Amino acid sequence: MSELPAALEEAVSFDDKGLVCAVAQQHDSGEVLMVAWMNRDALAETLASGQVCYWSRSRGKLWRKGESSGQTQKLIELSVDCDGDTLLLRVDQKGVACHTGRRSCFYRAVAEDGSLKEVLPVVTDPSKLYGA
Amino acid sequence: MSELPAALEEAVSFDDKGLVCAVAQQHDSGEVLMVAWMNRDALAETLASGQVCYWSRSRGKLWRKGESSGQTQKLIELSVDCDGDTLLLRVDQKGVACHTGRRSCFYRAVAEDGSLKEVLPVVTDPSKLYGA
Repeated sequence: MSELPAALEEAVSFDDKGLVCAVAQQHDSGEVLMVAWMNRDALAETLASGQVCYWSRSRGKLWRKGESSGQTQKLIELSVDCDGDTLLLRVDQKGVACHTGRRSCFYRAVAEDGSLKEVLPVVTDPSKLYGA
Repeated sequence: MSELPAALEEAVSFDDKGLVCAVAQQHDSGEVLMVAWMNRDALAETLASGQVCYWSRSRGKLWRKGESSGQTQKLIELSVDCDGDTLLLRVDQKGVACHTGRRSCFYRAVAEDGSLKEVLPVVTDPSKLYGA
């Protein structure tokens, strides 16, 4: 188990479930790829390994991004917001961030008429990400 | 009180406190400015008015971004992530997003030695944002 650097231990406010919100952004294009959660161990591992690791709330365990899909996130820079309850991860995303096979999870935008339209294409067949 | 469009009512998963996470991004530069929360009313008002309104968890009331500082966010595009628990707001930020007078709230980054370094300057004196 990795230790959290003292400066982060002080700066980051984990919530009552021990989690902090994390926004992943492609470092060069600026695309916001996804938002997920980290606990202390996930954050420490991410900093130690340079590969992004979240906490899966649904599975209740560490989620090494890309461990089953191969769509890993290499950490470029990690920053903390003013009140310490959100992290910004500048990453280099391999392939696609979204389990639907789209580059970003934010692929549905509100149209003028209030409906949702898809604004990002599927670039990788999800069945190829997770096998048969 | 504004109504939420039916497509959003269906797509957005509010948490057990009735909130959904919202990431604000400057629409042209790609800067991630801040992360805050919206309840149903804040989201409906944002869509109806075109000016971003959050829910302040600390104050327990609607937070019309810029209402006291003048640093408003005009909504350009609102998108929903794959599981509906986070929104991405592409905005046009007037002035600075952070109450510290920095453009973005994510102004502290982890350095090689594990310390936090300031990576964004104060561009507006905070005392000028909130008066004497």
